[in-house]
Amino acid sequence: VSRGAGALLALVLSFPTRASSPPVLAEETKAEMSRLLDLANRSSRAIEIVRSLTDEVGPRLAGSPGDAAAVAWAVRTMTALGFSNVHSEPVLVPHWERGEEAARVVAPVSQRLVITALGGSVPTAPEGLEAEIVETDSLEALGKLGEAVRGRIVFMNRQTERTRDGSGYGATSRLRVRGPSEAAKLGAAGYLLRSVGTSTTRVPHTGTLIYADNVARIPAAALPAPDADLLHRLLEAKKPVRVRLTLGCRNLSDATSHNVVGDLPGREKPEEIVVLGAHLDSWDLGQGAVDDGAGCAIVSEAVRLVGTLARRPRRTLRVVLYANEENGARGGKAYAEAHKGELARHVGALEADSGAGRCYGFTYRVGPGGEAFVAALKAFLQPVGSGEARDGEGGVDIGPLREAGVPSFGVRMDSTLYFDVHHSADDTFEKIDAKDLDSGVAVAAALAYAIADGAEALPRIRD
Amino acid sequence: VSRGAGALLALVLSFPTRASSPPVLAEETKAEMSRLLDLANRSSRAIEIVRSLTDEVGPRLAGSPGDAAAVAWAVRTMTALGFSNVHSEPVLVPHWERGEEAARVVAPVSQRLVITALGGSVPTAPEGLEAEIVETDSLEALGKLGEAVRGRIVFMNRQTERTRDGSGYGATSRLRVRGPSEAAKLGAAGYLLRSVGTSTTRVPHTGTLIYADNVARIPAAALPAPDADLLHRLLEAKKPVRVRLTLGCRNLSDATSHNVVGDLPGREKPEEIVVLGAHLDSWDLGQGAVDDGAGCAIVSEAVRLVGTLARRPRRTLRVVLYANEENGARGGKAYAEAHKGELARHVGALEADSGAGRCYGFTYRVGPGGEAFVAALKAFLQPVGSGEARDGEGGVDIGPLREAGVPSFGVRMDSTLYFDVHHSADDTFEKIDAKDLDSGVAVAAALAYAIADGAEALPRIRD
Repeated sequence: VSRGAGALLALVLSFPTRASSPPVLAEETKAEMSRLLDLANRSSRAIEIVRSLTDEVGPRLAGSPGDAAAVAWAVRTMTALGFSNVHSEPVLVPHWERGEEAARVVAPVSQRLVITALGGSVPTAPEGLEAEIVETDSLEALGKLGEAVRGRIVFMNRQTERTRDGSGYGATSRLRVRGPSEAAKLGAAGYLLRSVGTSTTRVPHTGTLIYADNVARIPAAALPAPDADLLHRLLEAKKPVRVRLTLGCRNLSDATSHNVVGDLPGREKPEEIVVLGAHLDSWDLGQGAVDDGAGCAIVSEAVRLVGTLARRPRRTLRVVLYANEENGARGGKAYAEAHKGELARHVGALEADSGAGRCYGFTYRVGPGGEAFVAALKAFLQPVGSGEARDGEGGVDIGPLREAGVPSFGVRMDSTLYFDVHHSADDTFEKIDAKDLDSGVAVAAALAYAIADGAEALPRIRD
Repeated sequence: VSRGAGALLALVLSFPTRASSPPVLAEETKAEMSRLLDLANRSSRAIEIVRSLTDEVGPRLAGSPGDAAAVAWAVRTMTALGFSNVHSEPVLVPHWERGEEAARVVAPVSQRLVITALGGSVPTAPEGLEAEIVETDSLEALGKLGEAVRGRIVFMNRQTERTRDGSGYGATSRLRVRGPSEAAKLGAAGYLLRSVGTSTTRVPHTGTLIYADNVARIPAAALPAPDADLLHRLLEAKKPVRVRLTLGCRNLSDATSHNVVGDLPGREKPEEIVVLGAHLDSWDLGQGAVDDGAGCAIVSEAVRLVGTLARRPRRTLRVVLYANEENGARGGKAYAEAHKGELARHVGALEADSGAGRCYGFTYRVGPGGEAFVAALKAFLQPVGSGEARDGEGGVDIGPLREAGVPSFGVRMDSTLYFDVHHSADDTFEKIDAKDLDSGVAVAAALAYAIADGAEALPRIRD
């Protein structure tokens, strides 16, 4: 046949899945994906990976000694898992230390408050900051308080809703990230936030704030729910409630941390890369088990399991354990910058950073024509209870890849209990159920295989 | 009818419940008891009493400023509730302060541990105590370790079972009370206890220890479950695990606190007294809401409700809010000592110190012949779900009255969730459900009325 007729024939035969559409799943691909689901159920070592990270390293906030220990751990672990090209890549990270933290109600009663500084907060004066508190429950309501805020400590009291998909956190985390500067614009002296979390215990949840430019930087801390409820009840009596807040935290010079990278080379197109990412850093209060030790274990073990198959995927799977997701997202940016000449060869990215609950689905962001592939993935994962797909960003660390057009995915772990422990001292190993964790390994492995094994790469995201 | 015939008739009509048997419940008595159940459901102010105590006073460990504030609160509150004879009676109490507390695993890894000193513990040296830990799970198993304990920190790792009746606590609290001295007898340098509690969070549970005479006093602290699990996992690797423990607690000279007393005089025999007791003191970590703000509210509100009836019981109801139950039980002893000439006129005692869960029954300890009365109470309370009665001690504070023969009772509150918060920072007001609390008020009021209203007093307990 002539070249023109052949092209026409090919177009007819493959409609509507070729050229402008992506390849759907080949039978051989699906067979390997099924094997991976089975392997993840039968012989996953993910729980041992997260145990090792949390017990042997523990807390690892960017720039801390734990952070450096975690980088060494990751290099050691990826090497032991048999990955190729294991190396670390430097990342300049913010370096913030918590220091002393204390608070008391001093009027109309005397009561100790449990608090924890928000990540990045400036300190108070050494003798503390004492002021009357003023309560509100949204940034909009705060704005309307106007002059009532001047010289006061804003008490932002909004409960985070418990949801499977983490949408409750989405709704309240902005009160932590933006709230302090919004309060400072009105002249507030400090900021006390009801913890962005769902626990009912006396364990506060930290997390990053972002100070706006050209606005006074005020000290900011989170209260656990019982302490927030106490302030609320005291305010109901309509007498002025005064709080003394003492924070000794410090913003130090930037430090050097590292992204840690390891590859499982593809069988046909090893130069094309699918990134599986999670973040290696954690907050300082807990042990970073669910956030994001779980994700580190999921992506590492998923790639190890793929490596045990006789038939590797066409393209390279690359594990990247990112630095500094929590308080700067510098790891994701540094990876994209360091690899900017190779981003066209990055054909997919998947992130695991939604805890350690049972995996019930995945998020996707693909270019036009990728819908059939997503539908095929969904159909494949539905029978194992992991087929709930929705358009979504995948994760913070792979954000710069996504912005460069790389088709992006995320595992969706059941977050019903996640925000009980997230960013708190309660983020510890024993909270993780090994079988739930393995459900994430299964989905990450199957997704990664599918993305990396297509005859053609997925259509890139367009602006 | 002649006096003799009338007595004979009365004997026949009331058989088998008179003379050697106690009076069973008269119809008039039961009518008032029913009114009390209804009042407790409709118009209880118990939740407001516990809110006031916990919000306005908060922690109130014996000898602390909070303890003195609580005594003033109790006098003020009982006066406002309309009680007679409101006064405080001095009690010499132990005075222990917590101070600094910190612990770390220093080998084979470095990890911060959350701990809290056991009440009454001696401090470590200022630079801390560093030693290898040795794990065990019972006093019996500890004894068998022998020389392996010398110079080490004993790590007592036994999970408290979650039960409705608090029996799990009964089984493990001895590891806290007696464990430190049992370890010291074998030459231990320190004692780390898995918290006697059922919570899974990073909140440790304190509670008193009792040092044995003529045994070295070693520092002792409790770990929350996640930290105990961490130590257990580290020990599984069979490498020596070393911990550094720093406690700055202090045993000071005895201080003066007070029992607070208030009466509702009886209509016929005001000189005969039924005590309703709870303890006013609390541990220092939380706000003493369930332990025992709840009990203080239950007995105070029960007596207030009885006072609203047109027909008061024959005998006086006396609320005693005891000092220093938690770390000395000196309040109960001081009351019995101060009233030793009047104990024969104390005809009953009831304690509320089992938390704020739903009331499902009561304990009793009565003399021979009291069984019919107990059976009648049980039958009366069964329809409202509070009829589960068992022989039991009633409470620590009324122990000296019980030892003097006073028939003793206790409300049994559902303890399924109690030991999640008991003796911890999580013992806070918002944990209490007002309706559950009121179920305790209802039972305490009905029991107290029944005990105080009999034609004859209940048979006293015999040795």
